[in-house]
Amino acid sequence: MKKNGVLNSRLAHVIASMGHTDKLVVCDSGLPIPFGKTIIDLALTRNIPKFLDTVKVILEELKIERIIIANEMEAKNRGTYNSLKKIISKVDIKKVPHEQFKEITRIESNIIFVRTGEATPYANVILVSGVTF
Amino acid sequence: MKKNGVLNSRLAHVIASMGHTDKLVVCDSGLPIPFGKTIIDLALTRNIPKFLDTVKVILEELKIERIIIANEMEAKNRGTYNSLKKIISKVDIKKVPHEQFKEITRIESNIIFVRTGEATPYANVILVSGVTF
Repeated sequence: MKKNGVLNSRLAHVIASMGHTDKLVVCDSGLPIPFGKTIIDLALTRNIPKFLDTVKVILEELKIERIIIANEMEAKNRGTYNSLKKIISKVDIKKVPHEQFKEITRIESNIIFVRTGEATPYANVILVSGVTF
Repeated sequence: MKKNGVLNSRLAHVIASMGHTDKLVVCDSGLPIPFGKTIIDLALTRNIPKFLDTVKVILEELKIERIIIANEMEAKNRGTYNSLKKIISKVDIKKVPHEQFKEITRIESNIIFVRTGEATPYANVILVSGVTF
């Protein structure tokens, strides 16, 4: 079996399939996901797994160059916002209104969703893939 | 969105599809799953989600009439065994050698696997569906 990091078979597959600027949305359990998009649904129940734990594990394996979040996260979910900033360290953060965030998830084609059990508001991030060379 | 219990879309679907004696295996992250079987892979990383949390949430929604576990669980993973007994309360437990447990998962046709991130030994159970009337 796999020794570390992401154990989920579909998520490991998706991460290993990603190229430059491809996008992975890690979302709370309430974000509307456009019909027809690929979803890796990890939500078991309320707050299992947590949004931040999921982002952390993904970033052990995925090289990112920036993230996109909703403006609203900072004011409405400050704990998550502060922790997210620590986890991503020096990567640029683009902030957009939540409505625009959802629009990006609709119009992007190379985008896949990882749904967590998170039950706090605006706990959603778009991870934009970087390259390692 | 769904208000309680199992939030996972595939797991909710499977539970609602089950009939009398259909089987759901909830397993640790290391159980070999026969090729071709349906897997709901909830494993994020080591011990997320836990085996017992997953069983608990499933039993909020699934009526079972008995469970099957490996003999080895009681001696090799006593904490999990004791907690599992509490969770299932009065339901009969059938114990078989681990090799036979795996054989059952291979030869049964109406059986689906829920893979957790559990990283303790013999944390596997076959939940056998009951009926509510």
